[in-house]
Amino acid sequence: MLSKKIEPRVLKGFRDYLPKEASIRRSLFSKISSIFETHGFSPIETPALEYSEILLGKGSDETDKQMFRFNDQGGRDVSLRFDLTVPLARFVSEHQNDLIFPFKRSHIGTVWRAEKPQKGRYREFTQCDFDIIGSQSSMADSEVLLVAASFFKSLNVPFLIKINHRVILSEIINYFNISNKRTEALRAIDKLEKIGKDGVLTELIKETGIESDKAIKLVDLLIKISQGKTSSEVFNLITSEIKPTEELTKAIDGLGSVFKAMLDSGHKEDDIKLDITIARGLDYYTGIVFETQLKQIPKLGSVCSGGRYDDLANLYTSRKLPGVGGSIGIDRLLVGLDEIGELAHIKNERKGILIANMNDPESFKLLHDLRNVNIQSEIYPDDSKLGVQFKYADKRGIRFVLIKGESEKEKGVVTIKDLLATDDNSKQFEVNDNDLVNKVIELVG
Amino acid sequence: MLSKKIEPRVLKGFRDYLPKEASIRRSLFSKISSIFETHGFSPIETPALEYSEILLGKGSDETDKQMFRFNDQGGRDVSLRFDLTVPLARFVSEHQNDLIFPFKRSHIGTVWRAEKPQKGRYREFTQCDFDIIGSQSSMADSEVLLVAASFFKSLNVPFLIKINHRVILSEIINYFNISNKRTEALRAIDKLEKIGKDGVLTELIKETGIESDKAIKLVDLLIKISQGKTSSEVFNLITSEIKPTEELTKAIDGLGSVFKAMLDSGHKEDDIKLDITIARGLDYYTGIVFETQLKQIPKLGSVCSGGRYDDLANLYTSRKLPGVGGSIGIDRLLVGLDEIGELAHIKNERKGILIANMNDPESFKLLHDLRNVNIQSEIYPDDSKLGVQFKYADKRGIRFVLIKGESEKEKGVVTIKDLLATDDNSKQFEVNDNDLVNKVIELVG
Repeated sequence: MLSKKIEPRVLKGFRDYLPKEASIRRSLFSKISSIFETHGFSPIETPALEYSEILLGKGSDETDKQMFRFNDQGGRDVSLRFDLTVPLARFVSEHQNDLIFPFKRSHIGTVWRAEKPQKGRYREFTQCDFDIIGSQSSMADSEVLLVAASFFKSLNVPFLIKINHRVILSEIINYFNISNKRTEALRAIDKLEKIGKDGVLTELIKETGIESDKAIKLVDLLIKISQGKTSSEVFNLITSEIKPTEELTKAIDGLGSVFKAMLDSGHKEDDIKLDITIARGLDYYTGIVFETQLKQIPKLGSVCSGGRYDDLANLYTSRKLPGVGGSIGIDRLLVGLDEIGELAHIKNERKGILIANMNDPESFKLLHDLRNVNIQSEIYPDDSKLGVQFKYADKRGIRFVLIKGESEKEKGVVTIKDLLATDDNSKQFEVNDNDLVNKVIELVG
Repeated sequence: MLSKKIEPRVLKGFRDYLPKEASIRRSLFSKISSIFETHGFSPIETPALEYSEILLGKGSDETDKQMFRFNDQGGRDVSLRFDLTVPLARFVSEHQNDLIFPFKRSHIGTVWRAEKPQKGRYREFTQCDFDIIGSQSSMADSEVLLVAASFFKSLNVPFLIKINHRVILSEIINYFNISNKRTEALRAIDKLEKIGKDGVLTELIKETGIESDKAIKLVDLLIKISQGKTSSEVFNLITSEIKPTEELTKAIDGLGSVFKAMLDSGHKEDDIKLDITIARGLDYYTGIVFETQLKQIPKLGSVCSGGRYDDLANLYTSRKLPGVGGSIGIDRLLVGLDEIGELAHIKNERKGILIANMNDPESFKLLHDLRNVNIQSEIYPDDSKLGVQFKYADKRGIRFVLIKGESEKEKGVVTIKDLLATDDNSKQFEVNDNDLVNKVIELVG
């Protein structure tokens, strides 16, 4: 019977994950989860769909436009969440009497944005968020930064977390009397790494109206401060140049204790740096802010960012909920890890055992012995030629095939074929039935 | 500044997971994932949103009506997936040249159905699917059933997998000359456990037009066959009553090898049973079918079902793709586990360590020592009274609080407070700095 086929295709900006990629993602999620757990950040889950009024106007005009929004069967105006922060604010407000504060939560979840698709940017992606709500202490700041640093350290790739405090920048801006153009000044300063000194100068003068000699002083000060090698050097540079107010002293003390906590937790000065040009999400953050680079590809942009905010949920509750948190951009991180070749060994990894199908009803006993000691193993389901079965194993990334045919049965052995072996002795060899499980454990680790 | 608050609420039929529930879900997912991995079922992921034409008409009229369907910003007619099987069919058709067949895939994912919400039934829920595509072998049937059985065995709860083969029922129906009313007959037979012998008789006679003496013979035969204690007894009963055709012999042989594989893999006859009244998804399955009960609450319904199908993806490709698979209903399973008290020990479990905040900048060193050996631990971020900190630990489900104040520092010890201890000696005790990590490992296991 012929029938018209429907073209099998995914939506623009969406994607499937095939087994290899999906496995890599899973192992990264499980690494993140275990870091969250060790650090005491409990998981929560919230629905993909929310009332649109909960989500609208919480990000920017841009995110409002990018929301997948529609009326459901009951005529409700609903939208797919575009981040995990707005749902967190709703969640904390709704369940405030059932939650324990300070509330340490983690959330790994899918979010949707109808952005223009481009390389490495999709309309469906995953965020890994972690926050501490209900504490104003710099110890909470430290805990959040420790999650980020421990995670990247566990990946064994060179990383750099750049940390700043919004008050330091504000104080510098106040010092130069341009606090009436604070947002414009922050935006210009934030570009120092990208557009250089002259670029920042031009923008500062144009956007804030600052006199050019004062602008030069300001940028020189920033550069001078930026050249401090260790956080304590930077602190000294700041206070030697700027008359410390009470606010500034508090911010610097807070940052100091964050750096101390990081070093006391085994992180290196090389991996965490005070960078006073980092501004981030201008209107949202009020305390520390941070972003994270993979050192080998800084151009990739930040793979983990966050900071402290004064009031998470003022749209839903009158309870003031200060907090601090961060978010790991897992999709961008995977692009980055792939680019620097960090996924190659996982992609090429050989795993598991194939038991060749010799049309033997006893095969499942052998399979059970292997699975019983948690060895990833399977039996080829069809009674195909051995060549076909070897090819399947090879394509699947399986290195060893076990063969138990008539002759092996008579001898009480199993033949092990190593698909990667290059010399004849190790290509194929026999192991006694009784030694098999231990031998396989030895082979696959 | 006063502003009108938005009421924080979730949509009807949707729900949040608070930390305890979310943790339990996570641990169940991670158990399922590891079973999938050991059994060689690779993970895949597909988008939550698909073109509506991909999803429409693949389930039933009912699922079509329940789909969250809308036009996206680009005017595309899109829908949220209502299961993981239709996306799998689309996925396998689209990527058939990049996949390795037989294709063993697992998929844990959220699906959405605008059903009438009721107790334990939500509009957003999670499915855990596993399938082998591209093999007609009964060894593939065995592999799928082994995943189900191994998972429930790992939960340590009494379970029963009821297995049947569609051909057996078909042959019985043929034998009684009512194959022109096959669907009606299957539907009646499927209710034997629920409505009993007389109920089935009435329905059979009414719906298929079978004569009443033949109907009585049929139902008696079913009951007689059902009373077989072991699968081989049942096989003998079937072939002694029904003249075996080639088809029936093949089906019985296939089922026989499935049962042998299960027993060879350490499962007990008690946990897997041939039940020839199981019909399931009448028009879809063509070979084995199965469903799974928690023995303590059979009324909960099946928590894991599946079967063999002839052609997965004929709507998208002319390539014939036979397969076999199953699906674990994690949300229903959690309701069931909770009802039989299997979650109580997890809910009441005490985990992790709290380091009391004594306003000591050195605290992070202690924290690092614990996390370094993967002990879940945290520091109370605020400089609150110890009573407040103990209360926090207690509410969070933390049993031990470490205190290092001035007097402890002088003595080179840490005080450990056990929040569950009942006698004075173990309520609070001191441990030397050098012994601390080992002592904590001993305490938290």
